[in-house]
Amino acid sequence: MPVLRRRAIRSTERMEAFTDGVIAIAITLLTLDLHVPLHDATIGDGQLWRSLLDRWPNFVAFLVSFVVVGIIWINHHTMFAHIERADPTLVLINTFFLLTVSVLPFTTALLAEYLGHDGERTAVLVYTGWFILVSVAFNLLWWYSQKAGLRDDGADEAAAKQAAKRAKLGIPVYTALFLIALVSPTASVIGTGIMALLYALPNGLAAD
Amino acid sequence: MPVLRRRAIRSTERMEAFTDGVIAIAITLLTLDLHVPLHDATIGDGQLWRSLLDRWPNFVAFLVSFVVVGIIWINHHTMFAHIERADPTLVLINTFFLLTVSVLPFTTALLAEYLGHDGERTAVLVYTGWFILVSVAFNLLWWYSQKAGLRDDGADEAAAKQAAKRAKLGIPVYTALFLIALVSPTASVIGTGIMALLYALPNGLAAD
Amino acid sequence: MPVLRRRAIRSTERMEAFTDGVIAIAITLLTLDLHVPLHDATIGDGQLWRSLLDRWPNFVAFLVSFVVVGIIWINHHTMFAHIERADPTLVLINTFFLLTVSVLPFTTALLAEYLGHDGERTAVLVYTGWFILVSVAFNLLWWYSQKAGLRDDGADEAAAKQAAKRAKLGIPVYTALFLIALVSPTASVIGTGIMALLYALPNGLAAD
Amino acid sequence: MPVLRRRAIRSTERMEAFTDGVIAIAITLLTLDLHVPLHDATIGDGQLWRSLLDRWPNFVAFLVSFVVVGIIWINHHTMFAHIERADPTLVLINTFFLLTVSVLPFTTALLAEYLGHDGERTAVLVYTGWFILVSVAFNLLWWYSQKAGLRDDGADEAAAKQAAKRAKLGIPVYTALFLIALVSPTASVIGTGIMALLYALPNGLAAD
Repeated sequence: MPVLRRRAIRSTERMEAFTDGVIAIAITLLTLDLHVPLHDATIGDGQLWRSLLDRWPNFVAFLVSFVVVGIIWINHHTMFAHIERADPTLVLINTFFLLTVSVLPFTTALLAEYLGHDGERTAVLVYTGWFILVSVAFNLLWWYSQKAGLRDDGADEAAAKQAAKRAKLGIPVYTALFLIALVSPTASVIGTGIMALLYALPNGLAAD
Repeated sequence: MPVLRRRAIRSTERMEAFTDGVIAIAITLLTLDLHVPLHDATIGDGQLWRSLLDRWPNFVAFLVSFVVVGIIWINHHTMFAHIERADPTLVLINTFFLLTVSVLPFTTALLAEYLGHDGERTAVLVYTGWFILVSVAFNLLWWYSQKAGLRDDGADEAAAKQAAKRAKLGIPVYTALFLIALVSPTASVIGTGIMALLYALPNGLAAD
Repeated sequence: MPVLRRRAIRSTERMEAFTDGVIAIAITLLTLDLHVPLHDATIGDGQLWRSLLDRWPNFVAFLVSFVVVGIIWINHHTMFAHIERADPTLVLINTFFLLTVSVLPFTTALLAEYLGHDGERTAVLVYTGWFILVSVAFNLLWWYSQKAGLRDDGADEAAAKQAAKRAKLGIPVYTALFLIALVSPTASVIGTGIMALLYALPNGLAAD
Repeated sequence: MPVLRRRAIRSTERMEAFTDGVIAIAITLLTLDLHVPLHDATIGDGQLWRSLLDRWPNFVAFLVSFVVVGIIWINHHTMFAHIERADPTLVLINTFFLLTVSVLPFTTALLAEYLGHDGERTAVLVYTGWFILVSVAFNLLWWYSQKAGLRDDGADEAAAKQAAKRAKLGIPVYTALFLIALVSPTASVIGTGIMALLYALPNGLAAD
């Protein structure tokens, strides 16, 4: 695909726009699992409140995933502020990254369906295990852009290094959460939520 | 996330594009609740008309939510005409704002399912109560961008102040509609529709 | 909303991007009604072919709607090549236009469900009748942009006039198709398909 | 539609943005077929693993289609790096191309439903047959842009020729996979996956 190179050298704009599109759709599809209880099966206001509260796993799963995907978008944004050119391999890795992100509404729906039910451990293992894959794809982008000389860190090389370092944390963190799920799926989900909030805080996990 | 700052200082463009994407998807997903009556259960043209008319709650809920989300998009657009830079905290608040917006297809579906049925009060309380949250997130954006000096109101400082003032109205208005729902859910939905139309009128709620 | 004016005067870019987003989603959601026959109810390859062929109304409805929405996008694109500024009223009319477009997956699903079944006339009346509304919204955009002096027809005033004239044809054409549906729903759907193809041909309906 | 010409001559930007939107949505909708097994029918963690593994056709279909659509996006991107102007006919052909792409979630769902079940051959014939159509539409874009003089191959004419040549391979390849499905649907699906991976490799199918 040498053709791609010519335009790619000029900018990563269309790749960023396509990525934004896929992430925007994936994050919005997360809400499709907040199923509304049917009115045929509901008698009165009190029961609807209870039906809604019974769906707490759906809300928890939605919330945790939304925060994680939101952070993924922010981090992708940050990374591409340092990448000035794309080559075909970077486009491919980014497509693999998008594949991992687009599956998140499925792993989220799985978590929502089984949290608090039989099969919970399996669901949480799939949920946290998939995040490992997302994190691997994300780190591949950092690694390859550096290796192939596609970056322009400008005056901000320290910032780029710190962001890449933060990104690397994702793999051990999600692996730990995956292992925790073997013992306690509940603790693993709570841990995922806490990690997401820590990441979300500005400089929350900054290394310095 | 100091990395973000470098590009962010240059523009809020990608954040606006991502926001546009999420709002465009959320507003279009509203139509997914306009379920088509199945032909197995329908005998003839007259009955299909009646089936469609029986679904008035779905159409009302769709219409009110579409107008509200449309106005939210217009107001976000207006706000960001005054915001020239983003920092990580603004990005985070905007992500929280997007979270509140992306749930609107769910609260709309809930309203559509229960309007005119048992459980209506609960549905309307959730529906109007969620709008309070959307409004809080929206006002946080105004407040923080001002506080952190991210704005450039240029010659139009009066216009920015007026828009921020209009935005502030959202919180008491939706709180009032929430409280009205305790007494009369129907009145609360009608009120939400009327408020949306008033907001939609150019200068309809202008303060001067 | 005088605030909007400042940026709006500069460009219609974000409005076009938001419109593109909503139309792209609406046109892609059309395929959600191409339901796959379940394999539990299917015995062998021959029967799956027949099941698929039995779904011809879904494919016809999808195809006609896709072509019409595609043309709507092209025409909106054409129109905004002549509109250089937006004001709050234009944004509002455009939001109303988007509302009419976003409902098209619903009217298409209705057509798909009833074509060839009892209730077909009602479905076709809703389907063609809604296109009248889309056309009215589209013509409002042309009319208002002219009236409010938001256009810059440059050297191409003749082209703008011709495009506006073509747009005006939509209202009588869809009204005729609506009336035809009272007599023959089938003829009305075929007519809608033929009109869409004529419009699609470059210069197909050019007035000169 | 001579009106379009004026802006179109300037750029293909909005067309590319609209195309990106439709492809981003289509690729993300592919995940909607990764249905979650319901917890009512699942007893314990082991059974959920088995339920998930039983869904291998859904994962295979998703994976193959995701890679193919990803490559389609990359190739469209490559092509438009060589197209500098659009005319109404090119816009029309591109709309036809988008129509073929937007149906892919349906053919993918069909494959997922029938892979490994009765009716598999029919499903694979539809799946691979539709890719022939996508490839025809894609090649029409190359052919017409050349014929109508809309290209600017600049110094990279060799690259453009090679990309067009690679694109042409799609038609015989998918036709072969279609014919193979008559004998062995399984071999055809495996072949589609392999071809997708070969295409995905940078320079994997480069002609020189």
